[in-house]
Amino acid sequence: MAGPYVGTRDFFPEEMNFRNRMFGVLRTVCESYGYVEYGAPLLEPITLYQSKSSEEIVNDQVYRFIDRGEREVAIRPEMTPTLARMVSSKIMELVRPVRWYSIANFMRYERPGKGRLREFFQLNADLMGPATPAADAEILSLLIDILTAFGAKASDFKLRLSDRRLFDSYVKHSDKEVLRGIGRLLDKREKIGDEAFQEELSKIADAALAKKVNAFLAINVSDLAELGKSGAIDGGVADHLSQVIEILSAQGKSDFVEFDPGIIRGFDYYTGLIFEIQDSHPDNRRAICGGGRYDRLLGQMGKQEVPAIGFGLGDVTLEQFLTIRGLLTQAPEKQGCYFILFPETRDSSLKIANDLRRAGILVETSLDTNVKIGKQMEAADKKNRKFVLMQGGDELSRGVVRVKNLGSGEQFDLKPEELAQHLA
Amino acid sequence: MAGPYVGTRDFFPEEMNFRNRMFGVLRTVCESYGYVEYGAPLLEPITLYQSKSSEEIVNDQVYRFIDRGEREVAIRPEMTPTLARMVSSKIMELVRPVRWYSIANFMRYERPGKGRLREFFQLNADLMGPATPAADAEILSLLIDILTAFGAKASDFKLRLSDRRLFDSYVKHSDKEVLRGIGRLLDKREKIGDEAFQEELSKIADAALAKKVNAFLAINVSDLAELGKSGAIDGGVADHLSQVIEILSAQGKSDFVEFDPGIIRGFDYYTGLIFEIQDSHPDNRRAICGGGRYDRLLGQMGKQEVPAIGFGLGDVTLEQFLTIRGLLTQAPEKQGCYFILFPETRDSSLKIANDLRRAGILVETSLDTNVKIGKQMEAADKKNRKFVLMQGGDELSRGVVRVKNLGSGEQFDLKPEELAQHLA
Repeated sequence: MAGPYVGTRDFFPEEMNFRNRMFGVLRTVCESYGYVEYGAPLLEPITLYQSKSSEEIVNDQVYRFIDRGEREVAIRPEMTPTLARMVSSKIMELVRPVRWYSIANFMRYERPGKGRLREFFQLNADLMGPATPAADAEILSLLIDILTAFGAKASDFKLRLSDRRLFDSYVKHSDKEVLRGIGRLLDKREKIGDEAFQEELSKIADAALAKKVNAFLAINVSDLAELGKSGAIDGGVADHLSQVIEILSAQGKSDFVEFDPGIIRGFDYYTGLIFEIQDSHPDNRRAICGGGRYDRLLGQMGKQEVPAIGFGLGDVTLEQFLTIRGLLTQAPEKQGCYFILFPETRDSSLKIANDLRRAGILVETSLDTNVKIGKQMEAADKKNRKFVLMQGGDELSRGVVRVKNLGSGEQFDLKPEELAQHLA
Repeated sequence: MAGPYVGTRDFFPEEMNFRNRMFGVLRTVCESYGYVEYGAPLLEPITLYQSKSSEEIVNDQVYRFIDRGEREVAIRPEMTPTLARMVSSKIMELVRPVRWYSIANFMRYERPGKGRLREFFQLNADLMGPATPAADAEILSLLIDILTAFGAKASDFKLRLSDRRLFDSYVKHSDKEVLRGIGRLLDKREKIGDEAFQEELSKIADAALAKKVNAFLAINVSDLAELGKSGAIDGGVADHLSQVIEILSAQGKSDFVEFDPGIIRGFDYYTGLIFEIQDSHPDNRRAICGGGRYDRLLGQMGKQEVPAIGFGLGDVTLEQFLTIRGLLTQAPEKQGCYFILFPETRDSSLKIANDLRRAGILVETSLDTNVKIGKQMEAADKKNRKFVLMQGGDELSRGVVRVKNLGSGEQFDLKPEELAQHLA
C-alpha cells in the first residue's frame, strides 16, 4: 500500500520543486520563440493512434480499455496524434505559422528501468506551416536553446539529424518489406553494436544491398551536395538539409549539430527531417529526445494537408541528463516566515499573518499553542523559513511583533504595519 | 474524429491561457500560506479507494481496468487517498504541520453537464498536524482568500460549515443504517427542495425522529454554546466550532462564513468539520467546492494516526464561478516581436532573432520568405505581437533593423545591439 503503482512516481515536495523548475525553463524558452501552450484530453479513442503512431506503442505499450459506454479508449501514450486532431479541427481559423507547445503526462506499458517509466511527462513543441529550411532550423534551434538554457554545452550532447527520404532515394530498392526491416535494424544499431548489426543485415539483405546500406551509413555532410547533384540521392532533400545546417551555423550552433545518416525514428508518421539528441556522457550514451517532420498527418485527420515538424522531450530522460551533470540542483534558499502562536494572543497573531500574506509575504503559522518554543524554532528551521515571528502578551500590549532572523540570529521588535516592508 | 472524447476538453491556447492564469492565482495564495506543491501518479490500485472514498465514486464513477500485469487499477477520481498514502509513507521524516497542495487532472464517469465533466482539474490543499481550531480556521481562511484573490466578494459566495459529529450527538439514534439514509437525504435536500425532502424523510424515519431532524436543521450558530452546555449536542465539538468562527471573525472574515447544520459531504472518510462553498449567483446556486476533516484516514494507510483537513476545488466549477462574474477575463496585452524574413538576408535575421531571445525578448519569425509583407503584417497583428522587425538588403548594408510598433504605427531603425533594450 505504501508505494506508488509500478512505473509511476510520487512527487514529494522536493521532487516537485525540481520538476517545476525544470518545466519552468522549458516554458520560458518555448515562449521566447513565440510558442503558445495548449492542453489536451487524457483519454482518446484508440483509433486515433491505430496505423498512425508506432506499431510497438499501439500493440504493446498503450493503456487501453473499454469504457462504461462501450467505447475503446486509450490513455494517451504520446501527443502528436492529438495535436494533429486539434489543429486540423480549427485549421481555417488558426494564424500560420502555428507554434504550439504543451507539457503533459503520458502512459506507456513498459518495463521500468533507467530513464524509462510507465507514467512520464513530456514537452511537445510543434511548428505547423511552410516546410521551409527556416522552419526545420527553428525547431532544432529551439531544442538546442532549451538544453543550453539549463547550462549544457556542446560537449554534453549532439543533435543528430537526417532525412527519412535520403535512405530510400539512395538505396533504390523496390521491396518495401525489406526496407522496413532494415529500418528497424538501423534503429537498433547503436544498442546492439556494429558486429551484430552486420550479422542481422546479412540475414535480410543480399550482399549488394548490404553493401549499399553500409555505403549509405558512410555518407558525410560534405558529400550531400555532390551526391545530390549526381542523382545518387534526392537533390532537393540534400539541398534542404544543407540549408538547415547553414542556418544553424549562422547562429553559432554548428558545434551542436551532426549529420548522421544512420538515425531512424520509430514513428510511422514521419516524412522528412528526423532528429534526436544524443547524450555524450559515458554513463548515459542514449537518445534523450527525438522528433521529426510529419507533413501528411494533419491531412489524414482533417480536410487540409499542413506541413508540420516537432519533437517530444521526456522528463525522465531530461532529469537524468541534468542530474548526471549537476545541473539545476541548487538547494532552495530560505524564505518566508514562521509565526509561533500563543494561547492568549492567537487571534491577533493569526490576523497579522493574514494581513502579511495579502502583502505578498509567505507566512506559515504554528497551530498548536501548547508546543514549546524550542521545538517550534526547530520546525521553522527545518521548513527552511527565513524569519520567526512571535507576539506574546507582552508584545501585544506594546503593539509590536518579535522578529528573529534564522540566518543571522538577530532579533528585534517591529510594529505590525512595519513588518511587510522589512520581511519582503 | 474532430472532437475530444466525451466529457473531456481540448484546451486551445486561449483556453489554456485562462487555465494557467487561474492556476497561477491558486498557487500564489496557497504558497503565501506556506503550502508546498506535490505531485502523484495518475493510476492507483482500486483498493486504495475501496471502503475509504465514496461508494458512488468507487461503484459508478471511477475509470477502472485490469492492466497487462493483471492488476486492477483506477485512474484517480480524487486526490485524498493518494495524499494520505504518500504522507503516511514518510510520516516520520516530515516536519509537522504538513502543508501540501497539488493541482492535477482526475477522471470520473459522469453524465457531462453544466459544471460537470469527466476529466477535470482540481486544487487539493491539505493540512496535517494538530486538529486545533487554528488548523480548521486556516484551511477555511485559505479557501476564502483564494476566492477573494480572484476579486470575489462576500456577496458572491458563502462558506457553509458544520461538523459531522453534531448530527449524531443531537439525534442520539442507535440505528446506523437509518442515520446513513438520512445523511444521503440531507445531501440531496438543496436539489430536491424541502417538500420532497420531508416526504422522503417520513419514509425512512418515524415521526419522533423526523421531528428531531427538523429541529436539528433549525439550529443557529448562536445556539451552539447553550446546546453544548446542556449536553443536547457534543459540548467539545460546539466549543471547537465556535472558536473556528471566532478566529475567522478576528480576520474580518465573518461575512463569508455561515454555520449550516444541514450540510453533509459525500466522502466516507470525513470525521469532523465539513464545509462547502455555495455560489450566491441566481443562475448558479450550487456548491462549487467542498472539504472536511479526516482524522482517521492516515492511520488506515500507515502506522500512525495523523489528524488532517483539506478541500478540493475543481476547475470546471471555479471557471463557471469566475466567468459568470466576468472575473479573470481580461484580454492579454500585445507582446513580443514578429520578425519578417527576406530571402537574401534570412540567415542574418534569424541570428538576430536568436540573440534577442537570449536577452529575454519574445521573437517569433516568419518562415516563408515568399509571402508578401502585407500578409505578414496581418499575421503579426493577429498573433497579438507588439513590434514587427525587418532587415532587408538595404538595412543589412546599413547595419540596422527596421522596427514597426504595431500599436502606434511608429517606425524607426535600430542597430541590432540596441534592440533588446528598446523592445524589453
